[in-house]
Amino acid sequence: MTASSEQNWEKIAASKRAALAAQIPLEYRIPQQLLPPDDQLDVTTFPKESGWFDQKELEIAESSATHILNKIASRSWTSEEVTRAFLKHAAAAQQLTNCLTDFFPTEALAIAKSLDQHLRKTGKLVGPLHGLPISLKDNFNIVGKDSTVGFASLVNQPATCNATLVELLGGLGAVRYCKTNVPTAMMIPESVNNVFGRTVNPRNRKLTSGGSSGGESALIAFGGSVLGVGTDIGGSLRIPAACTGQEAVMSVNGPMAKSLEDITYYSKAVVDAQPWLIDPKCLPIPWRPAERKSKLKIAVLWNDGIVQPTPPVTRALKETVEKLQAAGHEVVGAWDPVQHLKAVELLARMFVADGGKSVRKLLAPTDEPWRPEMRSYSEASELGTYEMWQLHLQRSELQKDYLEQWMSYGGLDAILAPTCPYATVAHGDFDYVGYTGVYNVVDYSVVSFPSGVTVDKNQDRPSNHERLSEICEDVHAKYNPEEIDGMPVSLQLVAKRLEEEKVLVMTEMVLQAIHPSTLSSITSKIKAKI
Amino acid sequence: MTASSEQNWEKIAASKRAALAAQIPLEYRIPQQLLPPDDQLDVTTFPKESGWFDQKELEIAESSATHILNKIASRSWTSEEVTRAFLKHAAAAQQLTNCLTDFFPTEALAIAKSLDQHLRKTGKLVGPLHGLPISLKDNFNIVGKDSTVGFASLVNQPATCNATLVELLGGLGAVRYCKTNVPTAMMIPESVNNVFGRTVNPRNRKLTSGGSSGGESALIAFGGSVLGVGTDIGGSLRIPAACTGQEAVMSVNGPMAKSLEDITYYSKAVVDAQPWLIDPKCLPIPWRPAERKSKLKIAVLWNDGIVQPTPPVTRALKETVEKLQAAGHEVVGAWDPVQHLKAVELLARMFVADGGKSVRKLLAPTDEPWRPEMRSYSEASELGTYEMWQLHLQRSELQKDYLEQWMSYGGLDAILAPTCPYATVAHGDFDYVGYTGVYNVVDYSVVSFPSGVTVDKNQDRPSNHERLSEICEDVHAKYNPEEIDGMPVSLQLVAKRLEEEKVLVMTEMVLQAIHPSTLSSITSKIKAKI
Repeated sequence: MTASSEQNWEKIAASKRAALAAQIPLEYRIPQQLLPPDDQLDVTTFPKESGWFDQKELEIAESSATHILNKIASRSWTSEEVTRAFLKHAAAAQQLTNCLTDFFPTEALAIAKSLDQHLRKTGKLVGPLHGLPISLKDNFNIVGKDSTVGFASLVNQPATCNATLVELLGGLGAVRYCKTNVPTAMMIPESVNNVFGRTVNPRNRKLTSGGSSGGESALIAFGGSVLGVGTDIGGSLRIPAACTGQEAVMSVNGPMAKSLEDITYYSKAVVDAQPWLIDPKCLPIPWRPAERKSKLKIAVLWNDGIVQPTPPVTRALKETVEKLQAAGHEVVGAWDPVQHLKAVELLARMFVADGGKSVRKLLAPTDEPWRPEMRSYSEASELGTYEMWQLHLQRSELQKDYLEQWMSYGGLDAILAPTCPYATVAHGDFDYVGYTGVYNVVDYSVVSFPSGVTVDKNQDRPSNHERLSEICEDVHAKYNPEEIDGMPVSLQLVAKRLEEEKVLVMTEMVLQAIHPSTLSSITSKIKAKI
Repeated sequence: MTASSEQNWEKIAASKRAALAAQIPLEYRIPQQLLPPDDQLDVTTFPKESGWFDQKELEIAESSATHILNKIASRSWTSEEVTRAFLKHAAAAQQLTNCLTDFFPTEALAIAKSLDQHLRKTGKLVGPLHGLPISLKDNFNIVGKDSTVGFASLVNQPATCNATLVELLGGLGAVRYCKTNVPTAMMIPESVNNVFGRTVNPRNRKLTSGGSSGGESALIAFGGSVLGVGTDIGGSLRIPAACTGQEAVMSVNGPMAKSLEDITYYSKAVVDAQPWLIDPKCLPIPWRPAERKSKLKIAVLWNDGIVQPTPPVTRALKETVEKLQAAGHEVVGAWDPVQHLKAVELLARMFVADGGKSVRKLLAPTDEPWRPEMRSYSEASELGTYEMWQLHLQRSELQKDYLEQWMSYGGLDAILAPTCPYATVAHGDFDYVGYTGVYNVVDYSVVSFPSGVTVDKNQDRPSNHERLSEICEDVHAKYNPEEIDGMPVSLQLVAKRLEEEKVLVMTEMVLQAIHPSTLSSITSKIKAKI
């Protein structure tokens, strides 16, 4: 079958991995004697406990983005030293979690140094992100670098132009230094593919860091990045596969960070840069400061009618509701998930509407096999345009019905919902994306934030709740509190379409109500605008 | 072939036409002795010259919408008498130009009377359109009324819910009284279909009033409506056929009127009503007053590289440029139409991407034949979703390239362009929509306005300009200045995406530079927002 055994996908993948490993300079390779044993699950402790990092490196990597920017602006820190700290952390993250697809320290340091020089010479910042290292998901095109999104056939096909956002972030003063791993075609909810393999969760390496921005989330959780950019549902400009569902359910990009303040700062900086003058997909809507209401009116999505959340997630919802009420907010009751099944089915049908052709065309040149997680793509049959247009009509109707339901509450501000039915899962067990997917279908503004609740294997025993569907049965059969003990539970705060500013302000209010000791892994979909 | 000869499309169409004729009460039927002869071309003189209208009726029908609204608000006029004046004019327009598909005087007068009563009782207006009759294109659903868009199979299938805009206009105080004719599936640039037949141009009944909003334009030009709502590229909520190209090139609706002031007033009223709280396709962008610059920077689309405009259109462009320069505006030269062919081809491929299936399904039930103008639909083969997604990618690229070209001018405000290559044409000769279609593909904000230039058969002799394409050859072969002598020439002013407020203000400035004696038939695409 293979034209030449020299060109098959396994060899290409192996050589790509070797090239990536070689991109890590000796100084950033973890000394053999310091390497945690393979069976050490939590490696987030590595920077602090290994003794391999100096105090300054640790301080920098534990700072927020806004703190770092202030330090650089006041010339207490240089961009160069900040960049070196993150390069070292990112290199360690890669060696311990396999979260990168590209790493370019020389280029990063050259950018950082030139920014430092500019500030020294002119006394001025080039922009609101002056000197800040920002990590980028693999699908963002950067001139001269691959965007394989996990396909062997796309190895060694470097981009010839920068993605709009890459261009824009560079103009704002950001320093690029790495790209992060994704699932094949970005269409599996765990970050695994035939080229780079699997990214693991730095908090527990037996567990997934999710997907499709799982490389980003692992890197940030480890401390290898303070601010990363992910995407929601595909979004490569170059890869047809990544465009699966493009028109049907628009892909959006958005920031991921450990602090809400950083998310907001980044979002405003990007919107203020008027991306709509470069990218016609961006709407010409300036940043609109949202009113800070004294009292929010919030509905709760206890379950979506398809998959009952696992016990720690339901507990997180309950505890959050209690804290919101204690803080004086109005929780108006359960959001009836009457539209959710339709949304989830539509999403599934739209994803595979091309019969997997986009993916198949990228697998064929190297005889790369389908990953088992992509069975729904490999087995799908292509829809004709007429049928696809019928799906579009159904989606428009659903959007209208969802909005009507929202408006029926009179002044509803947000829905509090699970981000997924789990805290996280063991590799290969991430089976359900309906809780996030529904908001891609209706195109609402969402922030995912840590609830402050972590899984407690004693408290969160398996429930014998009514099973809502076959997939609900599956999810609960696989639920194992021992396995995920201690893992944080995230929730979503959902606002209507194009209410990004509002959802960020509301999340701040929710976090104040929660009073979490630590925040981690906040992601926001800054939809449609950026 | 036909199951029952009783049910074939011709009988259905004939009975629908008879029902429409019967909807015109005796008092609104033109007395036999006053009917202009069939060979009288210009019937716009009828209201004034026939003696059938009284002074007040004429005064009302010649007023602007804002004037009428002021008169009603100050209780100088009642909505009832205003409505009666337009009912009578519209009935006459229908009898002379065949521009309507529905007419409901009883319902209209009931609405008008109740608005008058409300104002008398409360001293308050229900909204900014209180008491104003507004005509609607056939595809807007109104409960209990057909939206056939020209298909026999959709006769006697009344809508069960109102279109968002219908609901919204009602809430603002508008009076609905008629629906206007369209081409089959709204996909022919002349308003002709197998159910209602052909709408003719009231200024010259041998000529077309255009399409797909040709019923509206005939009605307004005759004086049967002061403000109408049309759509651009399909847009029915109910008819799959109307959704052809829906996702690829969004359908938009917008006002048509004789005065720019009315267009602006209507647009602001609709945006102020926050349609995004009802219709998720509307963007939550409030009305943003546009800056009135002292000097505009304008590029000119002299030709699109495909079809050279006919002589009166080129003359209109030239004269307008001179007047703009005289008024102190900066005309930066020719817009290079390097993207236009690609756009026109994309549009054509997207329109027929379902292989004409949507239309075929609506023709089949009554054995209605394809109209000859729709050959490209009847002969098309359906694209698969994969191919359709490739077209979407091409369109995104084109949008990016068009924006890049725009930005390369540095501060370009607008493009001045032909609306079509003709002033108008004889029935059946409207062959080219590329000048408008390109701005649907890139989704820009456009106002079409009368240039003040009218065709002069002596001055506008056929040119022996270089022919740019086969269709250019055709257009110029059919060009006959005798036939269209005296017809007004429209031009387009084009602004970027979502710059509706700006393009309206700029059109005002252009019209001031032109100083036209009369304005007629201004249409605006209020894109994406409404």
